[in-house]
Amino acid sequence: MTVRLDEMTSPELDARVKAGPPVVILPTGAFEQHGPHLPLGTDAMIPQRLAERVAAQIDALVAPTLSYGYKSQPKSGGGNHMPGCASLDGATYTLMVRDLICDFARHGLTKIVLFDGHMENQMFLTEAADLSLRALKSEGITDVRIVKMGYWISINAALEKVLFPDGLISWELEHAAVMETSVMLHLAPDLVRRDLIPDHPPADFPLYDVYPFDPASVSHSGALSSAAGATAEKGKAVVETLVPELARQITEAFQNMTV
Amino acid sequence: MTVRLDEMTSPELDARVKAGPPVVILPTGAFEQHGPHLPLGTDAMIPQRLAERVAAQIDALVAPTLSYGYKSQPKSGGGNHMPGCASLDGATYTLMVRDLICDFARHGLTKIVLFDGHMENQMFLTEAADLSLRALKSEGITDVRIVKMGYWISINAALEKVLFPDGLISWELEHAAVMETSVMLHLAPDLVRRDLIPDHPPADFPLYDVYPFDPASVSHSGALSSAAGATAEKGKAVVETLVPELARQITEAFQNMTV
Amino acid sequence: MTVRLDEMTSPELDARVKAGPPVVILPTGAFEQHGPHLPLGTDAMIPQRLAERVAAQIDALVAPTLSYGYKSQPKSGGGNHMPGCASLDGATYTLMVRDLICDFARHGLTKIVLFDGHMENQMFLTEAADLSLRALKSEGITDVRIVKMGYWISINAALEKVLFPDGLISWELEHAAVMETSVMLHLAPDLVRRDLIPDHPPADFPLYDVYPFDPASVSHSGALSSAAGATAEKGKAVVETLVPELARQITEAFQNMTV
Amino acid sequence: MTVRLDEMTSPELDARVKAGPPVVILPTGAFEQHGPHLPLGTDAMIPQRLAERVAAQIDALVAPTLSYGYKSQPKSGGGNHMPGCASLDGATYTLMVRDLICDFARHGLTKIVLFDGHMENQMFLTEAADLSLRALKSEGITDVRIVKMGYWISINAALEKVLFPDGLISWELEHAAVMETSVMLHLAPDLVRRDLIPDHPPADFPLYDVYPFDPASVSHSGALSSAAGATAEKGKAVVETLVPELARQITEAFQNMTV
Amino acid sequence: MTVRLDEMTSPELDARVKAGPPVVILPTGAFEQHGPHLPLGTDAMIPQRLAERVAAQIDALVAPTLSYGYKSQPKSGGGNHMPGCASLDGATYTLMVRDLICDFARHGLTKIVLFDGHMENQMFLTEAADLSLRALKSEGITDVRIVKMGYWISINAALEKVLFPDGLISWELEHAAVMETSVMLHLAPDLVRRDLIPDHPPADFPLYDVYPFDPASVSHSGALSSAAGATAEKGKAVVETLVPELARQITEAFQNMTV
Amino acid sequence: MTVRLDEMTSPELDARVKAGPPVVILPTGAFEQHGPHLPLGTDAMIPQRLAERVAAQIDALVAPTLSYGYKSQPKSGGGNHMPGCASLDGATYTLMVRDLICDFARHGLTKIVLFDGHMENQMFLTEAADLSLRALKSEGITDVRIVKMGYWISINAALEKVLFPDGLISWELEHAAVMETSVMLHLAPDLVRRDLIPDHPPADFPLYDVYPFDPASVSHSGALSSAAGATAEKGKAVVETLVPELARQITEAFQNMTV
Repeated sequence: MTVRLDEMTSPELDARVKAGPPVVILPTGAFEQHGPHLPLGTDAMIPQRLAERVAAQIDALVAPTLSYGYKSQPKSGGGNHMPGCASLDGATYTLMVRDLICDFARHGLTKIVLFDGHMENQMFLTEAADLSLRALKSEGITDVRIVKMGYWISINAALEKVLFPDGLISWELEHAAVMETSVMLHLAPDLVRRDLIPDHPPADFPLYDVYPFDPASVSHSGALSSAAGATAEKGKAVVETLVPELARQITEAFQNMTV
Repeated sequence: MTVRLDEMTSPELDARVKAGPPVVILPTGAFEQHGPHLPLGTDAMIPQRLAERVAAQIDALVAPTLSYGYKSQPKSGGGNHMPGCASLDGATYTLMVRDLICDFARHGLTKIVLFDGHMENQMFLTEAADLSLRALKSEGITDVRIVKMGYWISINAALEKVLFPDGLISWELEHAAVMETSVMLHLAPDLVRRDLIPDHPPADFPLYDVYPFDPASVSHSGALSSAAGATAEKGKAVVETLVPELARQITEAFQNMTV
Repeated sequence: MTVRLDEMTSPELDARVKAGPPVVILPTGAFEQHGPHLPLGTDAMIPQRLAERVAAQIDALVAPTLSYGYKSQPKSGGGNHMPGCASLDGATYTLMVRDLICDFARHGLTKIVLFDGHMENQMFLTEAADLSLRALKSEGITDVRIVKMGYWISINAALEKVLFPDGLISWELEHAAVMETSVMLHLAPDLVRRDLIPDHPPADFPLYDVYPFDPASVSHSGALSSAAGATAEKGKAVVETLVPELARQITEAFQNMTV
Repeated sequence: MTVRLDEMTSPELDARVKAGPPVVILPTGAFEQHGPHLPLGTDAMIPQRLAERVAAQIDALVAPTLSYGYKSQPKSGGGNHMPGCASLDGATYTLMVRDLICDFARHGLTKIVLFDGHMENQMFLTEAADLSLRALKSEGITDVRIVKMGYWISINAALEKVLFPDGLISWELEHAAVMETSVMLHLAPDLVRRDLIPDHPPADFPLYDVYPFDPASVSHSGALSSAAGATAEKGKAVVETLVPELARQITEAFQNMTV
Repeated sequence: MTVRLDEMTSPELDARVKAGPPVVILPTGAFEQHGPHLPLGTDAMIPQRLAERVAAQIDALVAPTLSYGYKSQPKSGGGNHMPGCASLDGATYTLMVRDLICDFARHGLTKIVLFDGHMENQMFLTEAADLSLRALKSEGITDVRIVKMGYWISINAALEKVLFPDGLISWELEHAAVMETSVMLHLAPDLVRRDLIPDHPPADFPLYDVYPFDPASVSHSGALSSAAGATAEKGKAVVETLVPELARQITEAFQNMTV
Repeated sequence: MTVRLDEMTSPELDARVKAGPPVVILPTGAFEQHGPHLPLGTDAMIPQRLAERVAAQIDALVAPTLSYGYKSQPKSGGGNHMPGCASLDGATYTLMVRDLICDFARHGLTKIVLFDGHMENQMFLTEAADLSLRALKSEGITDVRIVKMGYWISINAALEKVLFPDGLISWELEHAAVMETSVMLHLAPDLVRRDLIPDHPPADFPLYDVYPFDPASVSHSGALSSAAGATAEKGKAVVETLVPELARQITEAFQNMTV
């Protein structure tokens, strides 16, 4: 049986809802440059594929992925000016997620996971959750629970040691670097341009942010630090650690609901 | 070489843009009930798969599909109240498409096809096109052309005769009926529940619309007319007729641009 | 006794509401070019005058007409670029209608007909109806019914034969053509420039839409097909057929309300 | 020749614009209770009829009246809770007027008078003017002039003496009182319920405003002070004084434009 | 004990709310030019300082002042184009105040005074009050009362005589003139540039408004009439008259609430 | 000479702008619970006071502080449900900051520092910067630079050692804890309730976020970790380290502008 909501039919979903609302995982990605070696859809592909594995373990469902996200930021994504970014304004993004949460809940899908693959989305997901709960409350729909998580939240010290045997430089500079590249080598090896994996010093940003961003002020390949240490084995380790752990956390998060 | 934008890398796209902007096809779908036999993602799956075939013929690219659309209407989709609908408000939908058109154009992707799989999106796509052109103009970006089409626009009399040898009842009632079911039988046969294909008289609506819609006022299965006449062969005929014809029309539509 | 809401006084309306809410018909028009022979207010004048006749038959009331509408489209109105168009953005239009529906309902006018004279308004009227019902529900006002209709919905085969004895080319190209011109010749003969009634082949559009629209791509007078066959007699036939039929449909549409 | 824009045709307006843009007067009214004796459309009817007289004197044009306005306030209109009010939210009202100013200007109608009949509209008209100028500027349209006036601005001391031989109580309490009633007795005598003209002491409000407004806190008929002194002769004096004076001021206001 | 909300702690405020909600006074100011002699923050400083004095008399609390307001208008503030103005759009201002009223009320602070120091804010405060009551009602929060007042509402005839022994020219032209300058000489003498107090004839505006405003059309110093008559003694008289009177009115306005 | 913009006059600011635009620092705070010992205005007071010290060192100006911010989050501020929070929606906050940046820039103040005291504001400040640059560009104003920084960005390893001689637990849990309490003991000692400084284990949150937040799920005083180690000396060290370092960074950030 599929975990993908869009492959189910209306009566099949209806039956699931009537049997007690299933958890719905909504992968929230981005369309963002990921260096010379990773595809533009990386931030959508990773959470979607992880979500399907997580859902299979806990009998959850995966809603169609949001393929576009909030604007790439220089320090975490290289910047929205780079080729291959297409993003939504903050208000648009918030309304889009708010509308979907509300409509899922109106149809009885009251257990929703915002499963993020793109750091820049985080605060707008928070706002969307708040606005949707307020709107639903005014419609008399109150038994809704929304859980927000990045797929990366369960990367623990052990996994860090696997990924960075010589030590982690900074999670903030891990865009298109060792972790993402490794995961993609495991999940979607055909989409990684192996001969183009960049190896250069980490990007060097000031502590503050400047708008408009001056691309000439920083040197990098689109990856914010070296991805040379990436391997499919590391990616496998990440996926095999994260999937059961995220499944456990989601299960925990929805305990003790009235419905 | 892939036609999917999300499988390309940033430098690959950059090279394409610098060589003269490629046509970008944005499939615009919906998450909407499609009777007992078709999956909820039908309106996204069909335009995405057709877009990939069209793009391959004319060296265009396909952007990640918009999987959620404007609210299903009773007369054309059964209605947003049915299980398995999740939709966006009109303003949200318009802003989402406007933002994407603007950001594509800011990155040099100035030839955009809004390739629709869901009738209810049409006017909001029109508004998004108008608002994005206005915004881009005020940013000094003027050589942009947006083409809007439903994938169905080239279904001609000959194809109608193939689909409905006994005569078409009404295109408006073709939701989840012969045409969509046939196309899905051809494009995604594993997702069609063949044993559940409905066969009943067409839904009988008054000429006006009533809000809130009363589901008890109309009888149907989610399909608005019988899908019993659907076959994979008919679907193949539709796809093989539409793909080259839509390719031809897109090529025509972007002729005579300055860039 | 007047059917025009704006000619009533506050206590008179109060008494009507307390006696059981009357049906309120809101004509929704446009300010749009209508060829060389019809006035710019045609799409507002026709539904207003028909609404007054319909209201008189069923003891309904007519609210002040919305004289401005959504943007004229090339294929149905010639296009908003033409002289004598002034239109509202989609979101503005939706909010305007939403606010009015809500405020009517807050004052007890819970039976509302959106009586349209301009095709381009249709989907934004739909969205306004949905948003107003949602807002009213959150205010605890639930016994509201909104009916949407174009005045043209009851033009049947018999009337088509009267209007187009040689056959109809296409309803889509009937802008400022035989039907509208005939109705204006009957309802407001002084406003029709008879010597300027255009007679030319129908406009020839591609199946897709292009933005920005290139006026040079299509040839027409502002009327999208010939209006030469228009007569006051045909207009009289339309009006005399539509008024009782629309009255009947409105009566039917509001049956079985609790209030 | 008509002064009403909606009675003109597209080519007629085009010719006028090409000959040098005419002044366009946009009457901005309201749908608001006006006591037991005046119709709900009073605030729309007065500016529309005055505008037509003014336009005739200076070869200006009158756009279709905005029949709905911002919410009636207790101290100036009795309050939006009273039967027969239907109003727009502030943002909606502002966007509606902004869109129209912008679209008029895009079509060459760059001399616009916001001709107000409803005090509560004033600040939202101001905001609409500011936002439209900003939007037009970003589209490269800069030679636009917008003039805002209430029709009452030219009521001078002499006219006050005619209207209130025993002295004016307060302009703020003149809602549905001597001035408006007199003008309506002159302009639309059939719409005034003469036997219901109220005569009572002025409403007594605190200096502050309270939300939500408590209707029980103030006693009045819907008119905020006595209308007993109203006569058609006074109305005639107002109209005959205002029309030429407003015509003079509008002419003055548009002097020295480049176009 | 402080009257400033921002100097209290969370448990202190909690205790106050639980003992019966205190009145919260929200000073609403502006950042606006005030001639050559008064600081840009004048419209925020005056209501903040008066609010603290009023609050001390009636055991109310003062929320952090809104330092930015709606756009300065030529006839009441010289105009937003002048150096030292920074203002909010009308919709932004309304949403800001709406959000704060709602959040105060959600935390039990259901007695709110919008205490204005800037005329241009008035209608947007009205709209914010209306929108917040509507939103709160839909959340089930209904026992909220909002009082709107300018600090100037209690300037009576006696005080006018003190301020303008030779007669008042016009309250509308009192921007940065005798009243405000006197109050600042009393409340914040170090911030008044005494040697730069302007003395010139009042600004001479037409009865209508023109957008865009032409600064060359009117001559003034930023003060709209002479401030030469200002003295600290007059300011003291204003403050000592207003504070107890406003305290009395606020007390009166919140009588008879259920909570 | 004051560094506070609101204490300057219009001609004084005009002269500064004409001499070359000064840097304007806009402190962005919040109204948020800060445990039993710190005032609700802490997040506004700290950046305002630091900004004034920084401005004095580099001849910059300080705009009136934004006293209200985005909603307090449980993991970084305890949560917006706690007594003494009043916050703005994300879209409101973004528009407020956007409008101010735009209006400062329109008046020649083109060097703007968003100087943040409240983590939750960060992404909405980013969006405001992006939207304002887009709007200004469309008005033809392009030489604008916006710098965003939290006042905490320059807390380095040495300062960490001073603040946490026994080791830092987590910056995320430092809300109302050692750092903020120390700084307030130095900057505003009278506002710290010393006898109520909390000492308890750090709050223990899951890795994911749940909406609606359940206050019963976490135990803390409003401070997210112990503040027992706070001293005025530590606060002095923070202030004396940060002020010159932030001054240096701001100077650096505005180098190489054309204006």
